[in-house]
Amino acid sequence: MTNDGIFEAGNVTLQSGAVLPATRIVYRTHGRLNAARDNAILYPTHYLGTHDSNAWAIGPGKALDPDRYFIIIPNMLGNGVSSSPSNTAAPHDGPRFPLVTVRDNVLLQHRLMTEIFGLATLALVTGHSMGALQTFQWGALFPGMVQRIAPFCGAARTSRHNWLFLEGCKSALLADVAFAEGDYAAPPTVGIRAFARVYAGWAWSQTFFRRQLDREALGRPDMEAFLTQVWEPAFQAHDANNLLAMLATWQAADISADPRFGGDLEQALAAITARAIVMPCRTDLYFPPEDSEHEVAHMPHAELRVIPSIWGHMAGGGLNPEDAGFIDAVLRELLAR
Amino acid sequence: MTNDGIFEAGNVTLQSGAVLPATRIVYRTHGRLNAARDNAILYPTHYLGTHDSNAWAIGPGKALDPDRYFIIIPNMLGNGVSSSPSNTAAPHDGPRFPLVTVRDNVLLQHRLMTEIFGLATLALVTGHSMGALQTFQWGALFPGMVQRIAPFCGAARTSRHNWLFLEGCKSALLADVAFAEGDYAAPPTVGIRAFARVYAGWAWSQTFFRRQLDREALGRPDMEAFLTQVWEPAFQAHDANNLLAMLATWQAADISADPRFGGDLEQALAAITARAIVMPCRTDLYFPPEDSEHEVAHMPHAELRVIPSIWGHMAGGGLNPEDAGFIDAVLRELLAR
Repeated sequence: MTNDGIFEAGNVTLQSGAVLPATRIVYRTHGRLNAARDNAILYPTHYLGTHDSNAWAIGPGKALDPDRYFIIIPNMLGNGVSSSPSNTAAPHDGPRFPLVTVRDNVLLQHRLMTEIFGLATLALVTGHSMGALQTFQWGALFPGMVQRIAPFCGAARTSRHNWLFLEGCKSALLADVAFAEGDYAAPPTVGIRAFARVYAGWAWSQTFFRRQLDREALGRPDMEAFLTQVWEPAFQAHDANNLLAMLATWQAADISADPRFGGDLEQALAAITARAIVMPCRTDLYFPPEDSEHEVAHMPHAELRVIPSIWGHMAGGGLNPEDAGFIDAVLRELLAR
Repeated sequence: MTNDGIFEAGNVTLQSGAVLPATRIVYRTHGRLNAARDNAILYPTHYLGTHDSNAWAIGPGKALDPDRYFIIIPNMLGNGVSSSPSNTAAPHDGPRFPLVTVRDNVLLQHRLMTEIFGLATLALVTGHSMGALQTFQWGALFPGMVQRIAPFCGAARTSRHNWLFLEGCKSALLADVAFAEGDYAAPPTVGIRAFARVYAGWAWSQTFFRRQLDREALGRPDMEAFLTQVWEPAFQAHDANNLLAMLATWQAADISADPRFGGDLEQALAAITARAIVMPCRTDLYFPPEDSEHEVAHMPHAELRVIPSIWGHMAGGGLNPEDAGFIDAVLRELLAR
């Protein structure tokens, strides 16, 4: 059973100090909350994703079994479903949409969990990529509420190299004069196309392409066909300001950006007391396992489980059955603890 | 002793079948050719490089010792010094400059070696990045002439992932309407800036930035300062059509694109009979060691020597003394064989 809902959060003061009026989080739930209210799992969305994008990991017989758990998927701010540049009224529309942080998302999700669902505990928070950023943030902000976390292909803080990769994507989009500083009349399709092409080089591993998995697994005869028929349309489906708003959220992600931690990442990691399994992909070009090793070393109840895949960052996207199976097995193991 | 020269090659029929009129290769030499004419070393240039860019590896006491060797640095076509979009007359100027391949470069260099210097043998061909592409091509085309090759941070064939990374850079530049399909009145600085920013994410490794070496080694207080003060100006110094011409050369690089080999890379690699040491950098994001392992496995007298550096592709650029020392030691060892 799935249900969709909208959490009207009203005027929200963001981490930056700016106020976003009439903020809304759109969410989908799978399954039912039990009487003890202790079977809830939170599964935030990733970059370009919506509640639909997480569906692959949920189903009867899977770790995220809706017959057993109440799984809540909140759409990340900026994704075009929850409050975003594209659906917010003036004067906060388009390029005037304020910077939203991962922390802002998590604080709103916390209100959704408590005010709407009356939850005092979460059995698990998990997520891919920016969903993993939110997962780490949950662990650091609400250690008393989160029993387990399982971030995959993500990080507690966006690395400087990851920031730079994103900056490259952004600069490609901004190079299109049609972007018009965000006040475009028609979508800046040339810039979005460039954005998509830059991004494509990062999403999988070198080995993925060496073994021609883009042909075998993604079902296109050559790279150009893949780019023009699959990859670019996925980006063109998004509003350009939304792409940049989520990118800014990503670039700013840092669980240590908190008065309690004062920018000390190790201290912030130490605050994540939930039982945790951190799953980087061995070949992820933006969240390499070395960063995860550092995180796990400073988290009191965490362990590292590297996804042994050549799918790079996309190992967490659900397209490759082997990787999906690996993640599912780890989630099952963690939930059994 | 250095000397500069210009090789006027006349009308050159390129690998594509197109004819480039009045083709010229500008070159610099260090040292003197000995009486036996057997002390010549060829050291082609890399992307964005000129004869100046290779100077770091040459000097008394180094492997490339001008007191002992006659070192020839031919500027790659498209680099703005040898024949390039920016310095070629109509109708082959700007965006009408034909596709030049690595093979075209090497065939012209071969004419320079034989027609101008009267050489029948080369003690060594070596080069970084696109210089390495040319080095592999020399080995495959002229096995009887080349005694040794030492390509570093390069490949015998541009990988599909490498092609994609370059395609991303290109699309960022093309997103600037000021590029005007190559017939720009003023340089498309916004597009070149985007090109540079996209490129920056690839040039070093994730670890390089994690350890903040951009601050320590490149001497800038933060990433933005590095990008705007160092990295972008290096790209803005180049003509946009030149950037794209060299990029097209790179994307097309393939020693097996030869009637003798018919696209069979293993067969082409087997033709490289020179004593070879192939030096990928452990953390190079565009020429990862796995590709080099495959190359070496199919070359009859080759061995792999991985540069143990976190400088990524830039390990071959001469900026890091440790990497420069590693390469120098390997060149010395190879020359002693």
